[in-house]
Amino acid sequence: MSVKNGRQFLSIPGPTTVPDEVLSAMHRPAIDIRKGELVNVTARLKDDLRMITKSKGMPFIYIANGHGAWEAALSNVLCRNDKILVLESGSFAGGWGQTGGTIGLDVEVLPGSWRKSVDPEAVEERLKSDKSGDIKAVLVVQVDTASSVVNDIPAIRRAIDNAGHGALLMVDTIASLGTMDYRMDEWGVDVTVAACQKGLMMSPGISFTVANEKAMAFHQKANLRTAYWDWTSRQGSEHYQTYAGTPPVHMLFGLQKAFELIRDEGLDNIFNRHRLLAGATRAAVAKWSEKDEFAFNIIDPDDRADSVTTVLVRDEQKLGAIHEYCAEKCGVVIGVGIASLSGKALRIAHMGHINAPTLLGTLGVIEMSLNALSIPHGKGGVQAAIDYLAASVPR
Amino acid sequence: MSVKNGRQFLSIPGPTTVPDEVLSAMHRPAIDIRKGELVNVTARLKDDLRMITKSKGMPFIYIANGHGAWEAALSNVLCRNDKILVLESGSFAGGWGQTGGTIGLDVEVLPGSWRKSVDPEAVEERLKSDKSGDIKAVLVVQVDTASSVVNDIPAIRRAIDNAGHGALLMVDTIASLGTMDYRMDEWGVDVTVAACQKGLMMSPGISFTVANEKAMAFHQKANLRTAYWDWTSRQGSEHYQTYAGTPPVHMLFGLQKAFELIRDEGLDNIFNRHRLLAGATRAAVAKWSEKDEFAFNIIDPDDRADSVTTVLVRDEQKLGAIHEYCAEKCGVVIGVGIASLSGKALRIAHMGHINAPTLLGTLGVIEMSLNALSIPHGKGGVQAAIDYLAASVPR
Amino acid sequence: MSVKNGRQFLSIPGPTTVPDEVLSAMHRPAIDIRKGELVNVTARLKDDLRMITKSKGMPFIYIANGHGAWEAALSNVLCRNDKILVLESGSFAGGWGQTGGTIGLDVEVLPGSWRKSVDPEAVEERLKSDKSGDIKAVLVVQVDTASSVVNDIPAIRRAIDNAGHGALLMVDTIASLGTMDYRMDEWGVDVTVAACQKGLMMSPGISFTVANEKAMAFHQKANLRTAYWDWTSRQGSEHYQTYAGTPPVHMLFGLQKAFELIRDEGLDNIFNRHRLLAGATRAAVAKWSEKDEFAFNIIDPDDRADSVTTVLVRDEQKLGAIHEYCAEKCGVVIGVGIASLSGKALRIAHMGHINAPTLLGTLGVIEMSLNALSIPHGKGGVQAAIDYLAASVPR
Amino acid sequence: MSVKNGRQFLSIPGPTTVPDEVLSAMHRPAIDIRKGELVNVTARLKDDLRMITKSKGMPFIYIANGHGAWEAALSNVLCRNDKILVLESGSFAGGWGQTGGTIGLDVEVLPGSWRKSVDPEAVEERLKSDKSGDIKAVLVVQVDTASSVVNDIPAIRRAIDNAGHGALLMVDTIASLGTMDYRMDEWGVDVTVAACQKGLMMSPGISFTVANEKAMAFHQKANLRTAYWDWTSRQGSEHYQTYAGTPPVHMLFGLQKAFELIRDEGLDNIFNRHRLLAGATRAAVAKWSEKDEFAFNIIDPDDRADSVTTVLVRDEQKLGAIHEYCAEKCGVVIGVGIASLSGKALRIAHMGHINAPTLLGTLGVIEMSLNALSIPHGKGGVQAAIDYLAASVPR
Repeated sequence: MSVKNGRQFLSIPGPTTVPDEVLSAMHRPAIDIRKGELVNVTARLKDDLRMITKSKGMPFIYIANGHGAWEAALSNVLCRNDKILVLESGSFAGGWGQTGGTIGLDVEVLPGSWRKSVDPEAVEERLKSDKSGDIKAVLVVQVDTASSVVNDIPAIRRAIDNAGHGALLMVDTIASLGTMDYRMDEWGVDVTVAACQKGLMMSPGISFTVANEKAMAFHQKANLRTAYWDWTSRQGSEHYQTYAGTPPVHMLFGLQKAFELIRDEGLDNIFNRHRLLAGATRAAVAKWSEKDEFAFNIIDPDDRADSVTTVLVRDEQKLGAIHEYCAEKCGVVIGVGIASLSGKALRIAHMGHINAPTLLGTLGVIEMSLNALSIPHGKGGVQAAIDYLAASVPR
Repeated sequence: MSVKNGRQFLSIPGPTTVPDEVLSAMHRPAIDIRKGELVNVTARLKDDLRMITKSKGMPFIYIANGHGAWEAALSNVLCRNDKILVLESGSFAGGWGQTGGTIGLDVEVLPGSWRKSVDPEAVEERLKSDKSGDIKAVLVVQVDTASSVVNDIPAIRRAIDNAGHGALLMVDTIASLGTMDYRMDEWGVDVTVAACQKGLMMSPGISFTVANEKAMAFHQKANLRTAYWDWTSRQGSEHYQTYAGTPPVHMLFGLQKAFELIRDEGLDNIFNRHRLLAGATRAAVAKWSEKDEFAFNIIDPDDRADSVTTVLVRDEQKLGAIHEYCAEKCGVVIGVGIASLSGKALRIAHMGHINAPTLLGTLGVIEMSLNALSIPHGKGGVQAAIDYLAASVPR
Repeated sequence: MSVKNGRQFLSIPGPTTVPDEVLSAMHRPAIDIRKGELVNVTARLKDDLRMITKSKGMPFIYIANGHGAWEAALSNVLCRNDKILVLESGSFAGGWGQTGGTIGLDVEVLPGSWRKSVDPEAVEERLKSDKSGDIKAVLVVQVDTASSVVNDIPAIRRAIDNAGHGALLMVDTIASLGTMDYRMDEWGVDVTVAACQKGLMMSPGISFTVANEKAMAFHQKANLRTAYWDWTSRQGSEHYQTYAGTPPVHMLFGLQKAFELIRDEGLDNIFNRHRLLAGATRAAVAKWSEKDEFAFNIIDPDDRADSVTTVLVRDEQKLGAIHEYCAEKCGVVIGVGIASLSGKALRIAHMGHINAPTLLGTLGVIEMSLNALSIPHGKGGVQAAIDYLAASVPR
Repeated sequence: MSVKNGRQFLSIPGPTTVPDEVLSAMHRPAIDIRKGELVNVTARLKDDLRMITKSKGMPFIYIANGHGAWEAALSNVLCRNDKILVLESGSFAGGWGQTGGTIGLDVEVLPGSWRKSVDPEAVEERLKSDKSGDIKAVLVVQVDTASSVVNDIPAIRRAIDNAGHGALLMVDTIASLGTMDYRMDEWGVDVTVAACQKGLMMSPGISFTVANEKAMAFHQKANLRTAYWDWTSRQGSEHYQTYAGTPPVHMLFGLQKAFELIRDEGLDNIFNRHRLLAGATRAAVAKWSEKDEFAFNIIDPDDRADSVTTVLVRDEQKLGAIHEYCAEKCGVVIGVGIASLSGKALRIAHMGHINAPTLLGTLGVIEMSLNALSIPHGKGGVQAAIDYLAASVPR
């Protein structure tokens, strides 16, 4: 007995649902890579990246996932044994830091909590104590996909400025870009790292760095640069140099279409949509959490991301049963807890190509599972989500 | 302010959502039409049609929509001026009858209601009165897409038998096949009409007739046969004869995949899924109908189809506002009332490639619209649907 | 040992290669059929049909293959027992005539040859002898796909006029439209029949009729009209009426793209391309025919169509070997002879989505097969085709 | 006046034509990346890589182009300041060496010619002179895409063995794998580098390394390893570790299908097909080269690759005219000369998803351009290719 057959709902926090238009854009014959259309595609993609990151900086497009872009960002601006300060608020800043360790950097983690955003005061304090300027870069994620926290990037910028410190501010926007506002130039971010498979709605395999002038100045002195990641050679005049070799033809077609969808909807509309769907999700989770089997991982409502919601589930067996019921009985794949939250949380993604019926269907199936599995929860979660959306979206 | 961008939900009662696998199956280069793979596809499709209609009869595949198959069915078994008895229970039996009128048949409508199923006793009575056997065929739909009624085909068969009448029983299963049980041979149906774009999950453009031996005997004497529809020439040994000309290559690829999906899920599982999703829909509609702005079109719960639910809406302006809000704000296209219910009803489709999250998302958006538009309704419709499904789909 | 793997070349005279853009256009989710985009698609398709047939007449779009459109055309303008005069020059006018026979028309064939175009003088003579005006319509194909003849439609029009006869001129352009010039209004054609799967480059399943005012006047009195084909009901204001029921959603998407490709290239450029590729084919066939195993089916060079070339092959076993070698060893499917030329000819299609390398590759493989199979032929066929094209396509 | 519209022929030596089946395989909804189908896909891909490289070694799959795999291969087995010996025979071994330079290796190029294969005796001599064992790795390409040379890998292995030298043998098979025989284990290759977009028929964006036990032993001591490329972390038990982060979902679907096509045809059949199509190309080029405007770049016939043929063209303007004519008039994109052959050569690709008609069509268009542009050449190139193929592919 199942009500599963139909379109699968993929509610994992990346890679997210790829729009049909994007998949279609990838379905065409290969073309020449040295001149003509593809060269124009590349130029347009760079413009779009500037538009999306709100930056006049220099964008670089990598055939790699986000972990590749992490390595690219660090190796292009730093020297062997440079110290980097990693601001913990979940899993991914730490992961980025470890990557730095493997290429020869000295990694210091500023301890934080998986349940809170980064504390700008702690950043300021640590930087003030770095009298000798050992710290060359501060690494932070805007949204941590594991904890579902959102960090206040402008506040962290102010912390650095208040400390009068010259370190680069490097921000990982992989789980936030295209879901909430990000203003690289206005906020004083020096290096942005991004990837295509979450808010940008593209199939994974492409990632990005954007560098401002300060980062390009660091780049001139950096001694960790390697052929594949190197920003300088990627600025060469031949088209293949942009990709340090063969361009990923079909991926670029898909990316172009994804960026076109973003332009068509408009960034502000996109951010509003994400804010509303996140609000609806939180309305449902708040209701379910009236019974203490469930709780928000992120304690402070202001710290909760608009792209994903991590929900703590007390009983690991029940958690497993929810995942299985949603997937096997209803065709909905819910995100699992990862790293320190493995076996302790589920994650509801609400980013990218997602609308009200998709979210309400997903929440509806989760609530259905709670009923069917007799898991204690506050009833009316979906109803709360509906009421929230109805109130927020007038005629 | 919209929460629309994402996959559009198409909740119209046909053509329904085409599975991605089916669309993909149609996306391949053209092939030879005289021998090889395509000839095997045709043979397999005919076998599948027998499986789906539970019949050992002769299937015919038309490049045409359902209206074409109506004409095909009648012209192959009847003679000019033959009388046909049309059993009214909504819009479509009447439409089929009108088609008969255009090809030279004498059409008699047995009056019925748009809010009830066909009354087998009235059928029996009318046939008993046809002492001279003028009536050559009885036409009925299993499900009427307009009214959302389901008719009791075995009971109608018994009515004919009780009357000792020799008329053909011709059943239109366009809105029912692949959504609920249908047993052509066991139920004594002589001619089945079907189309691909509802429960069979294929893009529209293909329709079917299946004929049993009695129908084939009528066929021998029929004088309304024409080249395009003719069953005899379509049984010729050349592959093109099956299609009375060029086969619809890519449509056949899609149809083959759709039938493969049906075989994979299994008819009983498919019927159960539809029964549950219909039940959930009715749970929601029943709740909304606690305020008298809304009502089921079909009065008797036993008469309600598992493929579509027609909901009467008192105020035409409000009805229009619901449609517009769902589509423009949320990306959900709800079916409109048609024919005599135009401007008086909405229709929620729950047939074909549809699962719990898709239905709950659709219902969620409808309820969201009722809230946002301040339309009086019993609250908790979606909650009722969730509770119904949770109770019906155990772990 | 094979050099087959790679893209299959489909050189059959319809259905022809579907452009990737057209297949892609069909690969998208289903949409609403009652309003919005699809309604606009329909309107645009009708405009395009007028552009392609060079007519201000009324176009009708059928879910059917060309045989369906044959039935549609006849049933809309004629009455039971009307006489039609069928002008033989191959297989298909006769087939159309037979269709007329099944719907109640009196069919007279004006005998012709499979190796020559219709003789306008014979037409004039026959019509002159029809003093009582029994003949209501003259049926002719512009190109016969079986014989590969092209008929001179304006000359046939003049023949009718010279005879002072009032019969309708009905022209089947299925194998010519989109490959050579056709001017419905200027040439005085009353009814045009077309289908989508040859020069129009779409997957089969859609066909067309276009009617001028004289045809519409006949239509008012016609008594063979039936619901599915009827022009009057298809002019109704509801969108579904255009298709006499559910529109073929994805087929329309494909057709729209195919027509867009036609507009982009321009009819004159398309006709030139076909003329050149036909010329190249004939250069190769002429060379091969220097040994008398091979001969053009159409004797007079002026009678040879630009869309397909039928080549007589003396020895049926050798003919079979060529087909098998091309298909199994090289991945090229060559058209077979049909009807009276079954086992006696091969057909090389050069229509629709085809360019110089595709044609030269096809001819190259045929010549390769002649060599490999030691079949006597004049050498240098492909060389002649190359020389012809090089001379015809200056820098 | 053009005969261009139709399927574009892409005759560049990579990325090559992607089979329709592969494009279709990439066109499906995203799925979960942590368990289920995708995990099985990864396992299967690794098995297939072993099959294709004829190795029991350890395969690694990178989201990167071939240049990324170059960096991966070197960084995983070498230490800072290690010396590598680069065997020149065109452009790409040198490019690989330069990559090594950027990550801290000491690069020595063994000079060779762009018109000849690597001389094994020179290799042996150089290694014998390396008494202190400074050279840690020997880098060579099996086929150089620029020069179109093929190197004799077993002979180079013997040279190393004859010298009694312990350096790793690292082979770039990017332009050869899937087009000609390659036996990693039997030939004693320690590290293989490959990429998906040439003989493997996949859209670019994935590359590979395969390591044998000796390479894995070097890996243990290597100090250039970084997080993204590292073999050790990529052997972790979590699925994402295989890709050092998010797997490239749709690229993997495509790759799986491409490998399935390879298994279906069989490696030996694939190699035969390439050998024959290369032979046909050389027959045509030899004929054209009877006038001295044209010449093979690779002097010794035994040194010519089966995947691509580089043809020297004396006059750069004429060369440009050929490219333009083929592309703009006929829809065939021919490869350009690159690096030191820029402006001096054209390259005809005959690798991957290519069959006889595609090649003959390509050659036919080139010869057509020579005629149309009045460029001196030996006539009958295509005829020679046809004769060669006919003689080589018996019934």
